[in-house]
Amino acid sequence: MQRFTSDAISKMEKGYRVNFVNSLSGFKSSNLIGTADAEGNTNLAVFSSAVHLGADPALIGLVSRPRSVERHSIENILATGYYTINHVNRHIVKEAHQTAARYTREQCEFNESGLTPEFKGDFHAPFVSESKLCIAMKLVEAKHIEINNTEFIIGEIQDVFIGRDAIRDDGYVDIEQLGTVAASGLDSYHVTQRIGRLTYAKPDREPKWLLEDDR
Amino acid sequence: MQRFTSDAISKMEKGYRVNFVNSLSGFKSSNLIGTADAEGNTNLAVFSSAVHLGADPALIGLVSRPRSVERHSIENILATGYYTINHVNRHIVKEAHQTAARYTREQCEFNESGLTPEFKGDFHAPFVSESKLCIAMKLVEAKHIEINNTEFIIGEIQDVFIGRDAIRDDGYVDIEQLGTVAASGLDSYHVTQRIGRLTYAKPDREPKWLLEDDR
Repeated sequence: MQRFTSDAISKMEKGYRVNFVNSLSGFKSSNLIGTADAEGNTNLAVFSSAVHLGADPALIGLVSRPRSVERHSIENILATGYYTINHVNRHIVKEAHQTAARYTREQCEFNESGLTPEFKGDFHAPFVSESKLCIAMKLVEAKHIEINNTEFIIGEIQDVFIGRDAIRDDGYVDIEQLGTVAASGLDSYHVTQRIGRLTYAKPDREPKWLLEDDR
Repeated sequence: MQRFTSDAISKMEKGYRVNFVNSLSGFKSSNLIGTADAEGNTNLAVFSSAVHLGADPALIGLVSRPRSVERHSIENILATGYYTINHVNRHIVKEAHQTAARYTREQCEFNESGLTPEFKGDFHAPFVSESKLCIAMKLVEAKHIEINNTEFIIGEIQDVFIGRDAIRDDGYVDIEQLGTVAASGLDSYHVTQRIGRLTYAKPDREPKWLLEDDR
Protein backbone atom coordinates (compact mmCIF):
# COMPACT_ATOMS: atom_id res chain seq x y z
CA MET A 1 0.00 0.00 0.00
CA GLN A 2 1.18 3.50 -0.80
CA ARG A 3 0.74 6.00 2.04
CA PHE A 4 -0.21 9.66 1.61
CA THR A 5 -0.17 11.87 4.71
CA SER A 6 -2.40 14.93 5.08
CA ASP A 7 0.74 16.99 4.66
CA ALA A 8 1.58 15.27 1.36
CA ILE A 9 -2.00 15.81 0.16
CA SER A 10 -1.95 19.51 1.02
CA LYS A 11 1.32 19.90 -0.94
CA MET A 12 -0.03 18.24 -4.10
CA GLU A 13 -0.44 20.45 -7.17
CA LYS A 14 -4.04 21.71 -7.14
CA GLY A 15 -5.37 19.81 -10.16
CA TYR A 16 -3.67 16.62 -9.00
CA ARG A 17 -5.17 16.99 -5.51
CA VAL A 18 -8.65 17.59 -6.89
CA ASN A 19 -8.49 14.38 -8.94
CA PHE A 20 -6.98 12.45 -6.05
CA VAL A 21 -9.30 13.51 -3.24
CA ASN A 22 -12.41 13.27 -5.42
CA SER A 23 -11.63 9.57 -5.90
CA LEU A 24 -11.47 8.67 -2.22
CA SER A 25 -15.09 8.52 -1.06
CA GLY A 26 -15.85 5.66 -3.48
CA PHE A 27 -18.39 5.47 -6.30
CA LYS A 28 -20.77 8.39 -6.57
CA SER A 29 -24.23 9.04 -7.84
CA SER A 30 -24.52 11.06 -11.05
CA ASN A 31 -27.56 13.30 -11.30
CA LEU A 32 -28.70 16.31 -13.26
CA ILE A 33 -30.20 18.99 -11.03
CA GLY A 34 -32.87 21.02 -12.81
CA THR A 35 -33.89 24.45 -11.51
CA ALA A 36 -35.54 27.64 -12.72
CA ASP A 37 -35.22 31.16 -11.36
CA ALA A 38 -38.20 33.33 -10.41
CA GLU A 39 -38.53 34.44 -14.05
CA GLY A 40 -38.60 30.85 -15.27
CA ASN A 41 -35.08 30.80 -16.78
CA THR A 42 -33.96 27.19 -16.56
CA ASN A 43 -30.65 25.83 -15.31
CA LEU A 44 -29.17 22.34 -15.37
CA ALA A 45 -26.03 21.06 -13.62
CA VAL A 46 -24.47 17.65 -13.03
CA PHE A 47 -23.92 16.76 -9.35
CA SER A 48 -22.16 13.68 -7.96
CA SER A 49 -23.09 14.33 -4.34
CA ALA A 50 -26.71 13.21 -3.99
CA VAL A 51 -27.00 11.01 -0.91
CA HIS A 52 -29.90 9.11 0.68
CA LEU A 53 -30.92 10.71 3.99
CA GLY A 54 -34.03 8.84 5.03
CA ALA A 55 -37.09 6.96 3.79
CA ASP A 56 -39.87 8.41 5.99
CA PRO A 57 -39.98 11.31 5.35
CA ALA A 58 -38.27 10.56 2.03
CA LEU A 59 -35.18 12.79 1.95
CA ILE A 60 -32.14 13.28 -0.29
CA GLY A 61 -29.10 15.44 0.49
CA LEU A 62 -26.92 17.35 -1.99
CA VAL A 63 -23.60 19.11 -1.47
CA SER A 64 -23.00 22.37 -3.29
CA ARG A 65 -19.42 22.98 -4.21
CA PRO A 66 -17.99 26.50 -4.02
CA ARG A 67 -17.79 26.63 -7.82
CA SER A 68 -19.45 29.24 -9.95
CA VAL A 69 -20.96 26.67 -12.31
CA GLU A 70 -23.20 25.40 -9.58
CA ARG A 71 -24.09 28.66 -7.93
CA HIS A 72 -26.95 29.17 -10.35
CA SER A 73 -28.46 25.88 -9.21
CA ILE A 74 -28.07 26.67 -5.52
CA GLU A 75 -29.32 30.24 -5.92
CA ASN A 76 -32.40 28.96 -7.71
CA ILE A 77 -33.04 26.24 -5.11
CA LEU A 78 -32.75 28.73 -2.25
CA ALA A 79 -34.86 31.35 -4.04
CA THR A 80 -37.70 29.11 -5.25
CA GLY A 81 -37.56 26.09 -2.92
CA TYR A 82 -37.95 23.58 -5.75
CA TYR A 83 -35.67 21.49 -7.96
CA THR A 84 -35.50 18.19 -9.80
CA ILE A 85 -33.08 15.27 -9.55
CA ASN A 86 -32.65 13.29 -12.78
CA HIS A 87 -30.47 10.16 -13.05
CA VAL A 88 -27.72 10.33 -15.65
CA ASN A 89 -27.89 7.23 -17.82
CA ARG A 90 -25.38 5.72 -20.23
CA HIS A 91 -26.95 7.44 -23.24
CA ILE A 92 -26.53 11.00 -21.94
CA VAL A 93 -23.14 10.95 -20.20
CA LYS A 94 -21.43 13.47 -22.50
CA GLU A 95 -24.41 15.81 -22.43
CA ALA A 96 -24.60 15.62 -18.63
CA HIS A 97 -20.87 16.26 -18.24
CA GLN A 98 -21.09 19.30 -20.50
CA THR A 99 -23.54 21.00 -18.09
CA ALA A 100 -20.55 21.51 -15.76
CA ALA A 101 -19.10 24.14 -18.13
CA ARG A 102 -19.14 27.70 -16.79
CA TYR A 103 -22.01 29.12 -18.74
CA THR A 104 -23.34 32.58 -18.01
CA ARG A 105 -26.78 33.00 -16.50
CA GLU A 106 -28.09 34.01 -19.93
CA GLN A 107 -26.99 30.73 -21.47
CA CYS A 108 -29.12 27.67 -20.82
CA GLU A 109 -27.41 24.36 -20.15
CA PHE A 110 -30.32 22.59 -21.79
CA ASN A 111 -29.67 24.31 -25.12
CA GLU A 112 -25.91 24.05 -24.80
CA SER A 113 -25.85 20.37 -23.86
CA GLY A 114 -28.63 19.13 -26.14
CA LEU A 115 -30.77 17.79 -23.30
CA THR A 116 -34.52 18.45 -23.38
CA PRO A 117 -36.35 20.31 -20.59
CA GLU A 118 -39.72 18.87 -19.67
CA PHE A 119 -42.27 20.48 -17.36
CA LYS A 120 -44.71 18.29 -15.48
CA GLY A 121 -47.96 19.77 -14.18
CA ASP A 122 -47.33 23.07 -12.43
CA PHE A 123 -43.99 22.06 -10.88
CA HIS A 124 -41.66 25.06 -11.09
CA ALA A 125 -38.41 23.29 -12.03
CA PRO A 126 -37.68 21.47 -15.30
CA PHE A 127 -37.10 17.71 -15.57
CA VAL A 128 -34.74 16.07 -18.07
CA SER A 129 -36.76 14.31 -20.74
CA GLU A 130 -33.95 11.83 -21.52
CA SER A 131 -33.65 10.62 -17.91
CA LYS A 132 -35.35 7.37 -16.85
CA LEU A 133 -35.68 8.31 -13.16
CA CYS A 134 -36.76 11.84 -12.27
CA ILE A 135 -37.66 13.27 -8.88
CA ALA A 136 -39.47 16.47 -7.97
CA MET A 137 -37.83 17.90 -4.83
CA LYS A 138 -38.85 20.47 -2.24
CA LEU A 139 -36.17 22.24 -0.19
CA VAL A 140 -36.35 21.50 3.54
CA GLU A 141 -33.21 23.20 4.76
CA ALA A 142 -29.72 24.30 3.68
CA LYS A 143 -27.01 23.69 6.27
CA HIS A 144 -23.94 25.84 5.85
CA ILE A 145 -20.63 23.98 6.14
CA GLU A 146 -18.31 26.59 7.57
CA ILE A 147 -15.01 24.79 7.05
CA ASN A 148 -15.13 25.09 3.26
CA ASN A 149 -18.04 27.42 2.60
CA THR A 150 -20.32 24.85 0.98
CA GLU A 151 -23.98 24.06 1.58
CA PHE A 152 -25.60 20.76 2.47
CA ILE A 153 -29.02 20.93 0.82
CA ILE A 154 -31.70 18.77 2.41
CA GLY A 155 -34.77 18.13 0.27
CA GLU A 156 -37.98 16.14 0.54
CA ILE A 157 -39.14 13.93 -2.32
CA GLN A 158 -42.43 15.13 -3.83
CA ASP A 159 -43.04 13.07 -6.97
CA VAL A 160 -41.05 10.24 -8.52
CA PHE A 161 -41.17 9.22 -12.19
CA ILE A 162 -39.61 5.88 -13.12
CA GLY A 163 -39.26 4.04 -16.41
CA ARG A 164 -41.56 1.02 -16.63
CA ASP A 165 -40.67 -2.47 -15.40
CA ALA A 166 -37.80 -1.34 -13.18
CA ILE A 167 -39.54 -1.81 -9.83
CA ARG A 168 -39.20 -5.18 -8.10
CA ASP A 169 -41.86 -6.83 -5.94
CA ASP A 170 -40.24 -5.62 -2.69
CA GLY A 171 -39.96 -1.97 -3.78
CA TYR A 172 -36.32 -2.08 -4.94
CA VAL A 173 -35.80 -0.03 -8.08
CA ASP A 174 -33.40 -1.65 -10.56
CA ILE A 175 -31.43 1.46 -11.49
CA GLU A 176 -28.90 -0.72 -13.31
CA GLN A 177 -31.65 -1.80 -15.72
CA LEU A 178 -32.51 1.89 -16.22
CA GLY A 179 -28.91 2.46 -17.37
CA THR A 180 -28.09 4.78 -14.47
CA VAL A 181 -24.32 5.38 -14.31
CA ALA A 182 -21.95 5.61 -11.37
CA ALA A 183 -19.24 8.28 -11.26
CA SER A 184 -15.75 8.31 -9.76
CA GLY A 185 -13.27 11.11 -9.35
CA LEU A 186 -14.14 14.28 -11.24
CA ASP A 187 -14.69 12.93 -14.72
CA SER A 188 -15.03 9.12 -14.84
CA TYR A 189 -18.33 7.41 -15.64
CA HIS A 190 -19.12 3.74 -15.19
CA VAL A 191 -21.84 1.27 -16.08
CA THR A 192 -22.49 -1.43 -13.52
CA GLN A 193 -23.00 -5.16 -13.35
CA ARG A 194 -24.91 -6.49 -10.35
CA ILE A 195 -23.04 -8.98 -8.18
CA GLY A 196 -26.30 -9.60 -6.35
CA ARG A 197 -28.61 -8.56 -3.58
CA LEU A 198 -28.01 -9.92 -0.09
CA THR A 199 -30.52 -10.99 2.53
CA TYR A 200 -31.07 -8.70 5.52
CA ALA A 201 -28.09 -9.03 7.88
CA LYS A 202 -28.82 -10.76 11.20
CA PRO A 203 -26.45 -12.03 13.88
CA ASP A 204 -25.67 -15.77 13.66
CA ARG A 205 -26.86 -16.04 10.07
CA GLU A 206 -24.63 -15.72 7.03
CA PRO A 207 -26.11 -13.42 4.36
CA LYS A 208 -27.24 -15.19 1.19
CA TRP A 209 -27.62 -13.92 -2.36
CA LEU A 210 -31.29 -13.16 -3.01
CA LEU A 211 -32.92 -15.10 -5.82
CA GLU A 212 -35.83 -13.70 -7.82
CA ASP A 213 -38.15 -16.08 -5.96
CA ASP A 214 -37.14 -14.65 -2.58
CA ARG A 215 -38.38 -11.14 -3.31
CA MET B 1 -43.01 6.50 -16.82
CA GLN B 2 -44.77 5.41 -13.64
CA ARG B 3 -45.57 8.25 -11.23
CA PHE B 4 -45.42 8.01 -7.44
CA THR B 5 -46.69 10.97 -5.44
CA SER B 6 -45.37 11.79 -1.97
CA ASP B 7 -48.74 10.64 -0.66
CA ALA B 8 -48.35 7.26 -2.39
CA ILE B 9 -44.83 6.90 -1.00
CA SER B 10 -45.94 7.68 2.57
CA LYS B 11 -48.66 5.02 2.25
CA MET B 12 -46.28 2.27 1.09
CA GLU B 13 -45.70 -0.65 3.45
CA LYS B 14 -42.59 0.20 5.51
CA GLY B 15 -40.21 -2.40 4.06
CA TYR B 16 -41.33 -1.64 0.52
CA ARG B 17 -40.81 2.09 1.09
CA VAL B 18 -37.33 1.56 2.53
CA ASN B 19 -36.28 -0.43 -0.55
CA PHE B 20 -37.92 2.06 -2.89
CA VAL B 21 -36.61 5.33 -1.45
CA ASN B 22 -33.11 3.93 -0.87
CA SER B 23 -32.88 3.33 -4.63
CA LEU B 24 -33.67 6.88 -5.71
CA SER B 25 -30.48 8.85 -5.06
CA GLY B 26 -28.54 6.71 -7.58
CA PHE B 27 -25.47 4.56 -7.07
CA LYS B 28 -23.82 4.80 -3.67
CA SER B 29 -20.39 4.36 -2.19
CA SER B 30 -19.87 1.28 -0.02
CA ASN B 31 -17.46 1.71 2.86
CA LEU B 32 -16.63 0.03 6.13
CA ILE B 33 -16.33 2.50 8.99
CA GLY B 34 -13.86 1.37 11.64
CA THR B 35 -13.99 2.81 15.15
CA ALA B 36 -12.90 1.98 18.69
CA ASP B 37 -14.34 3.18 21.97
CA ALA B 38 -12.24 4.76 24.73
CA GLU B 39 -11.31 1.28 26.04
CA GLY B 40 -10.16 0.16 22.60
CA ASN B 41 -13.12 -2.12 21.82
CA THR B 42 -13.41 -2.11 18.04
CA ASN B 43 -16.52 -1.65 15.91
CA LEU B 44 -17.09 -1.99 12.17
CA ALA B 45 -20.16 -1.01 10.16
CA VAL B 46 -20.97 -0.73 6.46
CA PHE B 47 -22.13 2.72 5.31
CA SER B 48 -23.40 3.69 1.86
CA SER B 49 -23.51 7.43 2.54
CA ALA B 50 -19.90 8.63 2.27
CA VAL B 51 -19.82 11.72 0.09
CA HIS B 52 -17.01 13.97 -1.17
CA LEU B 53 -17.17 17.40 0.48
CA GLY B 54 -14.03 19.15 -0.67
CA ALA B 55 -10.42 18.68 -1.75
CA ASP B 56 -8.62 21.44 0.22
CA PRO B 57 -9.04 20.80 3.07
CA ALA B 58 -9.74 17.18 2.08
CA LEU B 59 -13.15 16.37 3.55
CA ILE B 60 -15.63 13.49 3.42
CA GLY B 61 -19.17 13.51 4.82
CA LEU B 62 -21.12 10.56 6.26
CA VAL B 63 -24.79 10.27 7.21
CA SER B 64 -25.68 8.31 10.30
CA ARG B 65 -29.03 6.58 10.13
CA PRO B 66 -31.22 6.40 13.23
CA ARG B 67 -30.63 2.65 13.45
CA SER B 68 -29.20 0.92 16.46
CA VAL B 69 -26.63 -1.02 14.42
CA GLU B 70 -24.83 2.17 13.59
CA ARG B 71 -25.07 3.96 16.89
CA HIS B 72 -21.92 2.27 18.12
CA SER B 73 -20.01 3.78 15.21
CA ILE B 74 -21.41 7.25 15.75
CA GLU B 75 -20.94 7.10 19.52
CA ASN B 76 -17.32 6.09 19.03
CA ILE B 77 -16.69 8.81 16.44
CA LEU B 78 -18.18 11.50 18.68
CA ALA B 79 -16.38 10.21 21.78
CA THR B 80 -12.90 9.72 20.30
CA GLY B 81 -12.87 12.01 17.24
CA TYR B 82 -11.27 9.38 15.00
CA TYR B 83 -12.45 6.72 12.54
CA THR B 84 -11.42 4.94 9.37
CA ILE B 85 -13.09 4.68 5.96
CA ASN B 86 -12.30 1.46 4.07
CA HIS B 87 -13.57 0.73 0.54
CA VAL B 88 -15.62 -2.45 0.18
CA ASN B 89 -14.25 -4.47 -2.72
CA ARG B 90 -15.74 -7.38 -4.66
CA HIS B 91 -13.96 -9.97 -2.51
CA ILE B 92 -15.49 -8.84 0.81
CA VAL B 93 -19.07 -7.94 -0.09
CA LYS B 94 -20.74 -10.60 2.07
CA GLU B 95 -18.48 -9.88 5.02
CA ALA B 96 -19.11 -6.15 4.73
CA HIS B 97 -22.88 -6.63 4.48
CA GLN B 98 -22.87 -8.82 7.59
CA THR B 99 -21.49 -5.94 9.70
CA ALA B 100 -24.97 -4.38 9.45
CA ALA B 101 -26.41 -7.05 11.76
CA ARG B 102 -27.51 -5.80 15.19
CA TYR B 103 -24.67 -7.06 17.29
CA THR B 104 -24.38 -6.10 20.94
CA ARG B 105 -21.57 -3.85 22.09
CA GLU B 106 -19.78 -6.92 23.50
CA GLN B 107 -19.70 -8.60 20.10
CA CYS B 108 -17.12 -7.41 17.58
CA GLU B 109 -18.14 -7.10 13.94
CA PHE B 110 -14.58 -7.99 12.95
CA ASN B 111 -14.86 -11.41 14.60
CA GLU B 112 -18.42 -11.95 13.48
CA SER B 113 -17.84 -11.01 9.84
CA GLY B 114 -14.41 -12.57 9.37
CA LEU B 115 -12.72 -9.29 8.44
CA THR B 116 -9.32 -8.48 9.92
CA PRO B 117 -8.64 -5.38 12.04
CA GLU B 118 -5.33 -3.68 11.36
CA PHE B 119 -3.82 -0.88 13.43
CA LYS B 120 -1.42 1.54 11.78
CA GLY B 121 1.00 3.53 13.92
CA ASP B 122 -0.78 5.04 16.93
CA PHE B 123 -4.03 5.79 15.12
CA HIS B 124 -6.90 5.01 17.51
CA ALA B 125 -9.33 3.37 15.07
CA PRO B 126 -8.85 0.04 13.25
CA PHE B 127 -8.46 -0.31 9.49
CA VAL B 128 -9.76 -3.26 7.47
CA SER B 129 -6.84 -5.36 6.31
CA GLU B 130 -8.74 -6.73 3.29
CA SER B 131 -9.57 -3.27 1.90
CA LYS B 132 -7.46 -1.80 -0.93
CA LEU B 133 -8.19 1.85 -0.09
CA CYS B 134 -8.20 2.92 3.56
CA ILE B 135 -8.46 6.41 5.02
CA ALA B 136 -7.68 7.67 8.53
CA MET B 137 -10.29 10.32 9.40
CA LYS B 138 -10.51 13.03 12.05
CA LEU B 139 -13.91 14.38 13.06
CA VAL B 140 -14.41 18.05 12.24
CA GLU B 141 -18.07 18.50 13.12
CA ALA B 142 -21.36 16.62 13.43
CA LYS B 143 -24.37 18.52 12.14
CA HIS B 144 -27.69 17.36 13.54
CA ILE B 145 -30.46 16.92 10.98
CA GLU B 146 -33.60 17.74 12.94
CA ILE B 147 -36.18 16.51 10.45
CA ASN B 148 -35.27 12.84 10.90
CA ASN B 149 -32.91 12.81 13.86
CA THR B 150 -29.77 11.81 11.94
CA GLU B 151 -26.26 13.25 11.98
CA PHE B 152 -24.17 14.55 9.10
CA ILE B 153 -20.61 13.72 10.11
CA ILE B 154 -17.92 15.93 8.56
CA GLY B 155 -14.40 14.55 8.71
CA GLU B 156 -10.96 15.59 7.52
CA ILE B 157 -8.70 13.12 5.74
CA GLN B 158 -5.52 12.39 7.71
CA ASP B 159 -3.74 9.51 5.99
CA VAL B 160 -4.62 7.58 2.84
CA PHE B 161 -3.42 4.05 2.03
CA ILE B 162 -3.92 2.83 -1.55
CA GLY B 163 -3.09 -0.43 -3.29
CA ARG B 164 -0.17 -0.07 -5.68
CA ASP B 165 -0.47 0.97 -9.34
CA ALA B 166 -3.96 2.45 -8.97
CA ILE B 167 -2.96 6.11 -9.18
CA ARG B 168 -2.91 7.76 -12.60
CA ASP B 169 -0.51 10.51 -13.67
CA ASP B 170 -3.06 13.26 -13.01
CA GLY B 171 -3.91 12.10 -9.48
CA TYR B 172 -7.07 10.14 -10.37
CA VAL B 173 -7.32 6.92 -8.35
CA ASP B 174 -8.64 4.00 -10.39
CA ILE B 175 -11.02 2.59 -7.78
CA GLU B 176 -12.49 0.26 -10.40
CA GLN B 177 -9.09 -1.42 -10.72
CA LEU B 178 -9.03 -1.77 -6.93
CA GLY B 179 -12.28 -3.74 -7.14
CA THR B 180 -14.27 -1.14 -5.18
CA VAL B 181 -17.98 -1.86 -5.48
CA ALA B 182 -20.97 0.44 -5.90
CA ALA B 183 -24.18 -0.12 -3.94
CA SER B 184 -27.82 0.53 -4.75
CA GLY B 185 -30.91 0.34 -2.61
CA LEU B 186 -30.38 -1.35 0.74
CA ASP B 187 -28.76 -4.58 -0.32
CA SER B 188 -27.53 -4.59 -3.92
CA TYR B 189 -23.83 -4.57 -4.81
CA HIS B 190 -22.35 -3.89 -8.22
CA VAL B 191 -19.01 -4.09 -9.97
CA THR B 192 -18.35 -1.41 -12.55
CA GLN B 193 -17.05 -1.09 -16.08
CA ARG B 194 -15.61 2.28 -17.06
CA ILE B 195 -17.30 4.01 -19.99
CA GLY B 196 -14.48 6.53 -19.91
CA ARG B 197 -13.17 9.76 -18.49
CA LEU B 198 -14.23 13.03 -20.09
CA THR B 199 -12.20 16.18 -20.65
CA TYR B 200 -12.90 19.19 -18.42
CA ALA B 201 -16.17 20.79 -19.51
CA LYS B 202 -15.83 24.21 -21.15
CA PRO B 203 -18.39 26.31 -23.05
CA ASP B 204 -18.23 25.96 -26.85
CA ARG B 205 -16.23 22.73 -26.71
CA GLU B 206 -17.71 19.26 -26.78
CA PRO B 207 -16.23 16.97 -24.11
CA LYS B 208 -14.03 14.18 -25.44
CA TRP B 209 -13.14 10.79 -23.98
CA LEU B 210 -9.70 10.96 -22.38
CA LEU B 211 -7.09 8.62 -23.77
CA GLU B 212 -4.23 7.31 -21.65
CA ASP B 213 -1.90 9.69 -23.47
CA ASP B 214 -3.92 12.73 -22.41
CA ARG B 215 -3.40 12.24 -18.71
